Amino acid sequence: MDCGEGTQIKMVQFKVKSRRISHIFITHLHGDHIFGLPGLLNSLSLNGRQEPLKIFGPEGIANYVRFNQKQSSAHFTFDIDFQELKGAGPIDLGTYCGLQFKAFPLKHRIPTFGYKAIEVQAELNVDPEAITKYSLSIEEILNVKKGASIIRGDSFIPTELLVLPPRRNRSFAYCTDTIYDPDILQYIEEVSLLYHEATYTDDLAEKARERMHSTTKDAAQIAKSARAKQLVIGHYSNRYKNLNTLLQEAKVVFQNTMIAEEGKLFQIL
Amino acid sequence: MDCGEGTQIKMVQFKVKSRRISHIFITHLHGDHIFGLPGLLNSLSLNGRQEPLKIFGPEGIANYVRFNQKQSSAHFTFDIDFQELKGAGPIDLGTYCGLQFKAFPLKHRIPTFGYKAIEVQAELNVDPEAITKYSLSIEEILNVKKGASIIRGDSFIPTELLVLPPRRNRSFAYCTDTIYDPDILQYIEEVSLLYHEATYTDDLAEKARERMHSTTKDAAQIAKSARAKQLVIGHYSNRYKNLNTLLQEAKVVFQNTMIAEEGKLFQIL
Repeated sequence: MDCGEGTQIKMVQFKVKSRRISHIFITHLHGDHIFGLPGLLNSLSLNGRQEPLKIFGPEGIANYVRFNQKQSSAHFTFDIDFQELKGAGPIDLGTYCGLQFKAFPLKHRIPTFGYKAIEVQAELNVDPEAITKYSLSIEEILNVKKGASIIRGDSFIPTELLVLPPRRNRSFAYCTDTIYDPDILQYIEEVSLLYHEATYTDDLAEKARERMHSTTKDAAQIAKSARAKQLVIGHYSNRYKNLNTLLQEAKVVFQNTMIAEEGKLFQIL
Repeated sequence: MDCGEGTQIKMVQFKVKSRRISHIFITHLHGDHIFGLPGLLNSLSLNGRQEPLKIFGPEGIANYVRFNQKQSSAHFTFDIDFQELKGAGPIDLGTYCGLQFKAFPLKHRIPTFGYKAIEVQAELNVDPEAITKYSLSIEEILNVKKGASIIRGDSFIPTELLVLPPRRNRSFAYCTDTIYDPDILQYIEEVSLLYHEATYTDDLAEKARERMHSTTKDAAQIAKSARAKQLVIGHYSNRYKNLNTLLQEAKVVFQNTMIAEEGKLFQIL
């Protein structure tokens, strides 16, 4: 999600394999979110990538990539499939890699979209007690995992009696850049982990409004209202050398806040 | 000279102040030479730069910068003056910061220019013996430094009798990317320090020709034929993990070769 300048350098540093990228989600066309994209795509091509790549983003993303691609006069070794977004949310983007993706509009100085990824439960979990009770065969267990009921002569055992309740699927929402906007709550209700920009501390709330960014407290209030499990804040103005101030401000409103830092990993609960 | 992705990140790392940049010289429009430019210019604007900036490069550089600038929908706080180059060399670019700049064509897959900077001797050095011999006053010394002769009534002492021979001004030439091309020798004769690309080792000479790049030996041969004082090679293919092989190959042809590495400083003799 997003690709600022130096993304590929950081990927090498943190041992993230670029060839594993299959989908790229761009929130908006400001430089700090896209200036790393031309170089990343160039490198993928230099490495001989064959698999097509899908790129989502606001109107103009295809033109941006194609213009920069042309600069390199390079024949790209792989195809890019662009999906340009517009209008109201939620926009269904499809299911990839076991995750269902949706986009929704944010409010920033230019057209901007937030993204949400929701785990898709590929298979049902068969209840061990049902296996014993009904003496399920391996074949029956595999069918039940896929949602089948059991039919043995006249007796019918519905799927619901054979499987555990589906667990609540984890989700991740990525909301940057945006002014404080309760309209997005409908898209991120009960999200497991919310990433929300917090460009400024609360004392610069007026500047945040003017630049259409959020403060620490704005981000925390959105997390609270959405009943998110966890909040990660980021996109700080480079005036902040000590990030603890930002973290503490957010925690006053939403205790379960964490701070984004280069290379840091977060577990989605 | 040139601005690949991550240039501004490295400038911060090596404490190079971006606000001191007044002129940018782009060799050609391949991504690895320009993808850092939009981000650098954006940052200069975010930092409130007022001083105009001059950018030299092949045809298309202005369009490239303006397109990417537009992406950010940002009002730039400073003006950019573009000078697009074409045709044969040497192209006189003017004198800035005590250096006279020239451009000349290189041979690569797209239009590409090399650059040369020559120290301009701002003032002449007055000969201490002449000061004694002619009893020069402070005022006379200052005038002679600026090139004046001395007139005392009927006697005339020409400048040549009063100053030391001008020292050979140091120079730097930047030649990348280019195939082995003896046509450039006319522009870089007796250059103090030559930077010349050496993308491949000698065993990949055929690939070098095909991709219109140079080998270590090509670069060294150009330095030797130009009677350069020093050679720095760079722009290595990322297949080379041990740069010593490249260095040793070049040294066979031109002993005074050095290898470019991130953050390394070279003294121009």
